[in-house]
Amino acid sequence: MKRRTFLKGGLAGAALFAVPRFVSGQQTTDNRQQTMEYGEGAVDSCPLSVDGCPLTAPVLGMAGYTFNKFDIDTTLAFMKRIDVHYLCIKDFHLPLDADAERIAEFKAKLKAHDVVGYGVGPIYMKDVEAVDRAFAYAQRVGVDLVVGVPGVWGDKAPRYEVLGRVEQKVKETGIRYAIHLHGPDMALYPDATSVWNDVCERDERMGMCLDIGHNLRAGADPIRDLKRYRKRVFDIHIKDVTLPTKAGKAIELGRGIIDFRAFVKMLRRVDYKGSLSLEYEKDMADPFVGIAESIGYFKGVQSVV
Amino acid sequence: MKRRTFLKGGLAGAALFAVPRFVSGQQTTDNRQQTMEYGEGAVDSCPLSVDGCPLTAPVLGMAGYTFNKFDIDTTLAFMKRIDVHYLCIKDFHLPLDADAERIAEFKAKLKAHDVVGYGVGPIYMKDVEAVDRAFAYAQRVGVDLVVGVPGVWGDKAPRYEVLGRVEQKVKETGIRYAIHLHGPDMALYPDATSVWNDVCERDERMGMCLDIGHNLRAGADPIRDLKRYRKRVFDIHIKDVTLPTKAGKAIELGRGIIDFRAFVKMLRRVDYKGSLSLEYEKDMADPFVGIAESIGYFKGVQSVV
Repeated sequence: MKRRTFLKGGLAGAALFAVPRFVSGQQTTDNRQQTMEYGEGAVDSCPLSVDGCPLTAPVLGMAGYTFNKFDIDTTLAFMKRIDVHYLCIKDFHLPLDADAERIAEFKAKLKAHDVVGYGVGPIYMKDVEAVDRAFAYAQRVGVDLVVGVPGVWGDKAPRYEVLGRVEQKVKETGIRYAIHLHGPDMALYPDATSVWNDVCERDERMGMCLDIGHNLRAGADPIRDLKRYRKRVFDIHIKDVTLPTKAGKAIELGRGIIDFRAFVKMLRRVDYKGSLSLEYEKDMADPFVGIAESIGYFKGVQSVV
Repeated sequence: MKRRTFLKGGLAGAALFAVPRFVSGQQTTDNRQQTMEYGEGAVDSCPLSVDGCPLTAPVLGMAGYTFNKFDIDTTLAFMKRIDVHYLCIKDFHLPLDADAERIAEFKAKLKAHDVVGYGVGPIYMKDVEAVDRAFAYAQRVGVDLVVGVPGVWGDKAPRYEVLGRVEQKVKETGIRYAIHLHGPDMALYPDATSVWNDVCERDERMGMCLDIGHNLRAGADPIRDLKRYRKRVFDIHIKDVTLPTKAGKAIELGRGIIDFRAFVKMLRRVDYKGSLSLEYEKDMADPFVGIAESIGYFKGVQSVV
């Protein structure tokens, strides 16, 4: 990935284009997220501070879940092709019980494709043993981030004994723990606020993987929540969705309702240094074209904002 | 395609980000095109005027040549997938001697995939008979744009008898003629200026297909030339290239040296209403992932600029 410097000086003189100049043969209702007023005040004046944030930053990776129908070789060959170099490792690519040899082989494959495994997960943890297993796995893999859920599908309430064990392991290992929020499909941690409420009083290395699509489907503005909870946002799943409700479906970036201009602007305003991965959940049996379009779209927006 | 309205109000308060905030593990030399000063004066004060320009505007189509290894069914199925709805028709998809029945069948296919054939070409025309054949073809197909070259590969100088016949046919039929410029690979019309010089005194429906990659490879700034020659730019081939020389290779949009932010800004400044197609010439045996990334990138830039 290149380092680029984009100056904005030219924009001051540009006209304000209220109406697109291209004529299209089609017209569709625009369900685009209404741009909220996030406030133009300096982020530093906000009650939260990112000072001392320990995060280092891979940028624009892939959430391993995207490739749940493909082996790691196919995944890595494709990532090379789309010029994306960070991967959150899912257990179907590297099992939780993988031994040192298996892990070494796996990491050599990543390295050969110029890919860094920046974290593991999401991992569901039904009990304290599962927490121990997950942190031991992360240690063996050598990452400092576990994306996890302290519970299982169908849970109505957090499993606090599991969360307590997570905090203990975070303190023991120094590995960060990001709770993955899953929108209205799951009662447990549907949105960023529900995660925040359970981590804000805990070790500062406990936070969230902000899934912007699921958060919006739960009715919560992901851009506002990135600002609000940035101190505890360690990983982000980027995606686009068709509607800000449970009926919202995954779609290629730019075709849905998320305002990526505002999102990227907020990443910069809060000086986000965590990881950021595309999780693409449309056409999962043949996702490559849609992933490529989405990666391209995000890079296009990033190049300008 | 959606009509979208993007307001820029928020940018005024945004910080000027001189340094990208994301840390990347890699660093590469940035060959990105140096941003030129295109002048901030109102376009209307320029000597050229687009007033009375007869163009109507399909936006973001595909140049048929991109699919020269694929049949029209594969092409259309893929275009549907990437949500692109305009195609410049190449003769390998619809032969120059196609009769009415063949053309009707072809157009029905396009319609079934929600694709509009907005023009034909590029067509090389070695003599006046070739000109007559091309315009008769365009009339049968029912398009008002021929992208053509009045000559053949290897020509060192324009064939003025061919160009004269083109002007005659343009006047007879009302069909516009856009000369495709082909960079340093071809002595005939390597850049926008060479086309301009041969059309500026002719019928105003004679102009160019501005291939921004080839123009840059010929050492000419495509953004400057879009501004200079906009009155005669009827079609644009968008692409990215690795270098501003003959050694420059085709590459996914955003990975090369063309400044798409400045390009899209100029499209708006000159109120461009012509057609605009991706011509993707990398991995032509398996271009789909690269096309999708490129389309995504361009849409991403367009959504913000």
